[in-house]
Amino acid sequence: MSQNTPHKMVVASTDDAAVLAVLADHGQSGARAHGRPLPHWILRPGLVLLDDDDDVAALLAAQPMVTAVHRHAPALPLARKFLRHHTTVKLGDIDVGGDAIAVIAGPCAIESFDDAVTLGRAVQGIGAVAMRGGVFKPRTSPWSFQGLEHSGLELLPRIRRETRLPIVTEVTSPEDVDALAEVADVLQVGARNMQNVPLLKALSRRRRPVLLKRAFGATVEELLGSAEYILAGGNDDVILCERGIRTFERHTRFTLDVAGVAWLKQHCHLPVLVDPSHAAGTPEMVIPLALAGLAAGADGLLVEVHDHPDDAKSDGDQALTLDNFKALMAAAGPLAEALGRRLPSPRA
Amino acid sequence: MSQNTPHKMVVASTDDAAVLAVLADHGQSGARAHGRPLPHWILRPGLVLLDDDDDVAALLAAQPMVTAVHRHAPALPLARKFLRHHTTVKLGDIDVGGDAIAVIAGPCAIESFDDAVTLGRAVQGIGAVAMRGGVFKPRTSPWSFQGLEHSGLELLPRIRRETRLPIVTEVTSPEDVDALAEVADVLQVGARNMQNVPLLKALSRRRRPVLLKRAFGATVEELLGSAEYILAGGNDDVILCERGIRTFERHTRFTLDVAGVAWLKQHCHLPVLVDPSHAAGTPEMVIPLALAGLAAGADGLLVEVHDHPDDAKSDGDQALTLDNFKALMAAAGPLAEALGRRLPSPRA
Amino acid sequence: MSQNTPHKMVVASTDDAAVLAVLADHGQSGARAHGRPLPHWILRPGLVLLDDDDDVAALLAAQPMVTAVHRHAPALPLARKFLRHHTTVKLGDIDVGGDAIAVIAGPCAIESFDDAVTLGRAVQGIGAVAMRGGVFKPRTSPWSFQGLEHSGLELLPRIRRETRLPIVTEVTSPEDVDALAEVADVLQVGARNMQNVPLLKALSRRRRPVLLKRAFGATVEELLGSAEYILAGGNDDVILCERGIRTFERHTRFTLDVAGVAWLKQHCHLPVLVDPSHAAGTPEMVIPLALAGLAAGADGLLVEVHDHPDDAKSDGDQALTLDNFKALMAAAGPLAEALGRRLPSPRA
Amino acid sequence: MSQNTPHKMVVASTDDAAVLAVLADHGQSGARAHGRPLPHWILRPGLVLLDDDDDVAALLAAQPMVTAVHRHAPALPLARKFLRHHTTVKLGDIDVGGDAIAVIAGPCAIESFDDAVTLGRAVQGIGAVAMRGGVFKPRTSPWSFQGLEHSGLELLPRIRRETRLPIVTEVTSPEDVDALAEVADVLQVGARNMQNVPLLKALSRRRRPVLLKRAFGATVEELLGSAEYILAGGNDDVILCERGIRTFERHTRFTLDVAGVAWLKQHCHLPVLVDPSHAAGTPEMVIPLALAGLAAGADGLLVEVHDHPDDAKSDGDQALTLDNFKALMAAAGPLAEALGRRLPSPRA
Repeated sequence: MSQNTPHKMVVASTDDAAVLAVLADHGQSGARAHGRPLPHWILRPGLVLLDDDDDVAALLAAQPMVTAVHRHAPALPLARKFLRHHTTVKLGDIDVGGDAIAVIAGPCAIESFDDAVTLGRAVQGIGAVAMRGGVFKPRTSPWSFQGLEHSGLELLPRIRRETRLPIVTEVTSPEDVDALAEVADVLQVGARNMQNVPLLKALSRRRRPVLLKRAFGATVEELLGSAEYILAGGNDDVILCERGIRTFERHTRFTLDVAGVAWLKQHCHLPVLVDPSHAAGTPEMVIPLALAGLAAGADGLLVEVHDHPDDAKSDGDQALTLDNFKALMAAAGPLAEALGRRLPSPRA
Repeated sequence: MSQNTPHKMVVASTDDAAVLAVLADHGQSGARAHGRPLPHWILRPGLVLLDDDDDVAALLAAQPMVTAVHRHAPALPLARKFLRHHTTVKLGDIDVGGDAIAVIAGPCAIESFDDAVTLGRAVQGIGAVAMRGGVFKPRTSPWSFQGLEHSGLELLPRIRRETRLPIVTEVTSPEDVDALAEVADVLQVGARNMQNVPLLKALSRRRRPVLLKRAFGATVEELLGSAEYILAGGNDDVILCERGIRTFERHTRFTLDVAGVAWLKQHCHLPVLVDPSHAAGTPEMVIPLALAGLAAGADGLLVEVHDHPDDAKSDGDQALTLDNFKALMAAAGPLAEALGRRLPSPRA
Repeated sequence: MSQNTPHKMVVASTDDAAVLAVLADHGQSGARAHGRPLPHWILRPGLVLLDDDDDVAALLAAQPMVTAVHRHAPALPLARKFLRHHTTVKLGDIDVGGDAIAVIAGPCAIESFDDAVTLGRAVQGIGAVAMRGGVFKPRTSPWSFQGLEHSGLELLPRIRRETRLPIVTEVTSPEDVDALAEVADVLQVGARNMQNVPLLKALSRRRRPVLLKRAFGATVEELLGSAEYILAGGNDDVILCERGIRTFERHTRFTLDVAGVAWLKQHCHLPVLVDPSHAAGTPEMVIPLALAGLAAGADGLLVEVHDHPDDAKSDGDQALTLDNFKALMAAAGPLAEALGRRLPSPRA
Repeated sequence: MSQNTPHKMVVASTDDAAVLAVLADHGQSGARAHGRPLPHWILRPGLVLLDDDDDVAALLAAQPMVTAVHRHAPALPLARKFLRHHTTVKLGDIDVGGDAIAVIAGPCAIESFDDAVTLGRAVQGIGAVAMRGGVFKPRTSPWSFQGLEHSGLELLPRIRRETRLPIVTEVTSPEDVDALAEVADVLQVGARNMQNVPLLKALSRRRRPVLLKRAFGATVEELLGSAEYILAGGNDDVILCERGIRTFERHTRFTLDVAGVAWLKQHCHLPVLVDPSHAAGTPEMVIPLALAGLAAGADGLLVEVHDHPDDAKSDGDQALTLDNFKALMAAAGPLAEALGRRLPSPRA
């Protein structure tokens, strides 16, 4: 990623993908934007974004299929939605951002191999398509449980093999990206690291999907800015996650910004999840927030579930029991249908 | 309402309404709380709230049907939910707070008789059960359109007669309560007047239903405090309305606090509507916010609709067109079913 | 006040007040803006704001002293600062908004004649120039102490006579404006009533100074909008007051927006006070907030002082003791000097 | 730092430091807390914090100089203020946190050697005691100027040598800590990295002073939690910095929480600066915010100054010109005196 590349571009509206062949003939065969190859979704009929070049602009304008050529400097060209398309990100059997609602469930932090496998099987039986579980937990105080840290790394592939569930786990340092990318399916950037630029850059250089959580003090535009860092380095597989923002209201720990979910779906092509657990802070609020998030357009949920919440080493206050989680899924199924989507059946 | 009444109470958990007959025999025949007759919903088996009295507490404890007697000083005894019950408020053909989702639609402000009747018929045909329309509009600046004010008063009964739709209209001054109560079905207290105590007290003395909107800087507890003023004066017909709170995020005008809706349904017995229009500020955000509000548990919607939004004298920016409103209702119907509720069919 | 007056205006930049004589000769003898006589501060050399009138605009443009004529529609023409001037409001011996820092001190609510007189004398001895004390207290719950209400009205002139201190008291209803204007020197509009339009209009029709507190969910622009209502009706004596806004941070009850104080001094000609007591919520935070408010440019302070805070019927938590108040004044004196202002000496 | 150390402690109130000799005799010779040597400020008469140990507790209780022994689990034992003391941090000639007000000034980002030297000399002549200037700038968008990055590293010691001014520069990655610690006097953690735990841990292992900025969505308690990470690793030289929080109000970019400054001075022993530039967003707001921060108790200022703000590659909007900066210092001097402090004279 060349950070200081001027980001003015030629934007061509076209009705035919053939224009791209023309471009290829005229020194734009790489079809690059911002110094990197254009992602596949731009190589389709519709809007074409290119590095600024007068000659190419003139050539494009002369093509019969080209209806208009604009010179444009979008603030966040890769994250914003210029085409009528959605990006989907593969997660095990399903495409996040497609019709299926993706529910990722599990404990805040992995506490032991046995507990994780038991819980993983249980949430899978209820319909979760992946398991969440951190081994690095950035906490407010250094004296709080920080996760199993490096000693937890070797557990992840064993849990994955045993449960056959994809694993989502948090990464907090650029130095850990490679090791975690080996053992997890999705690397999560927590709210407190949303603007940790060296971490975002390290993630942009791996092809491992990233689950990027919105900082509780950040605007949706700033969330897209952070996504742009990952996209700009060549990693297209970014899933966004709204988990509540900080407001004066304290009846919940954070205020879930469902309008933010709708805004992201309207202005960005990436999949968007909702984390009702961190927003709620108490289990009885998790189900209504999860349903509200889906109704606002979310592509899935990230939910804390623990079979013995009172014993959880972190965030037990807000974890759903397995019975609560069943109730959530029972409500989410019909709701998904009403919204024209579906909840995948639990894997046998 | 005696404002300084000490609000300690005897609270008796009972399995049989007969205990009330006992109370009646022992000097509590009026069964009063806070100097006013107990509302009907307390005169049922369940929890009984009474003015604090040692003798009565002892008598209650001695009754076979009484399982426990507590001395209790709840902060807001009338608005908080002590019994497993819901209050419903009659609005034309339906009970707000019951199974049916109540959608109230119309312009921000009534601009003329003809426009209001045309629009009223149109929204009724699409499924609205009542019409909103203000004649008194409290605006940020004195130089903005303030509504038709007193000259609009005589239009309301004419519009009502012509459309046969109940009318919800805003009241801003204690002096106007009587006149508006004559011509409207529901009196709305706007966000800016949520803590206008003389207004709340004036409304508490009429039996006209009140739609109480949450101030954008107020907590849900404070909203209940304002409801308590109306209930304390003897008016049980209060409908609450969440319309967005003020936060740092500005992609919408206000942040719809869907968790607030869920909290209110869990902690208070009153019906709760959502106003997605004021929260959104732009029409494209209204539908997702409306659906999210319903999914969080709202009993209905308050929506701004205008057949020519660009010509609206106030708040045209966020008004839905009739086509948008049809799309909203088409989405809300299946969602209501998925939530175990229903959208009433449009009246022929 | 004609609320729907179109607010386009002729704005003339002039170097000589004589232009006003010209205007007077040409049918603008009243020199009115928005249907009311122009306030004195506009009748000086500088910018002239007038009702929109083509003929007058042409006449003005033809005058030798007139350097430019603009057609202008400022959002809040009376509250915004178009001239380099400050409005001062008389309060007993001093002009609020002038060099002297005005400190108004006293209890949250008047509790009895004797207590008020004792406290009034004490705060006067320490340097307060007026006494605060409510008889109408809008509270969150109807079961909280609401002030002495109408029974307190007759106490105010007696306390005033006995202490010879001007009295600032809160008004909550348009119906009470006349009675309170008879017995108090300044009528305070509390944060919860900042956008109570009928109340603002009632206050605009009396010549009694108004202390207008910012609602904790309102922007500084909205505060000016409310001031504009009072100015527009013909009452020029408005003092603004910043008392903290609601934010996610809860170590204080509200977050004192010192930048709001500076903004108001830069964009508006009215005096601005700071109420550190309501912002703080605890006594130890009152002094630093008071000093910060003055350093940001405030023209004075509104401070809760109680000789026995623990016995206060309302807001005792944040009241300063008399010793605390002495410490505040001892710190404020040198600070005022450093800022080029002064704290008036206590009256003998 | 052992992160999972249980943080229960023995807390002994003592009137004599000799008790520590006793402790040393009984297996506590290291006088450690949380697995690290106790900082010097605990090795004084007053409160003693120790790892939890029944035997030691009993021994302590038996000492004549010990007035009380408590078992205690403070959330943040190192950052919170248990003793009546202040920590000071050396910065060039002065002690930050002592009587002298420390003003650190300079550009947002270092743009060239010559510009930095010219500006450094200028701000030094006006009274700055250190120069700020970033080479790593974490920006919202990857397409914005990110600082000179590694190519800027070699400039810092040259600028320092030429101007003889200590340099404060931002660090964004654990990997850069060592290199930056070699060339800068203070390492700044920006608001976006306040909870970047690997970075905090890396800084805790160096003895280089850290300037820790509050995240705009973080509480003051969370800021102390981040300071605790640095202290817990053995680096005592932490300076906190309030730079505005995010609220609904947008007339300034952020809302400077002056109460947060006062709270930190009351509850924590570390020095606290105020950054009025990032809070303000516009130059005309910087001076009132700077003065308000000092009046609330801040130990100094961090100010953006640029001799040609319009040409600045980042954050030019809010930078003071040199004339503005002179005006700020002219106002800050008398204010510091009024507060019982002083502004150091400019170095010849």
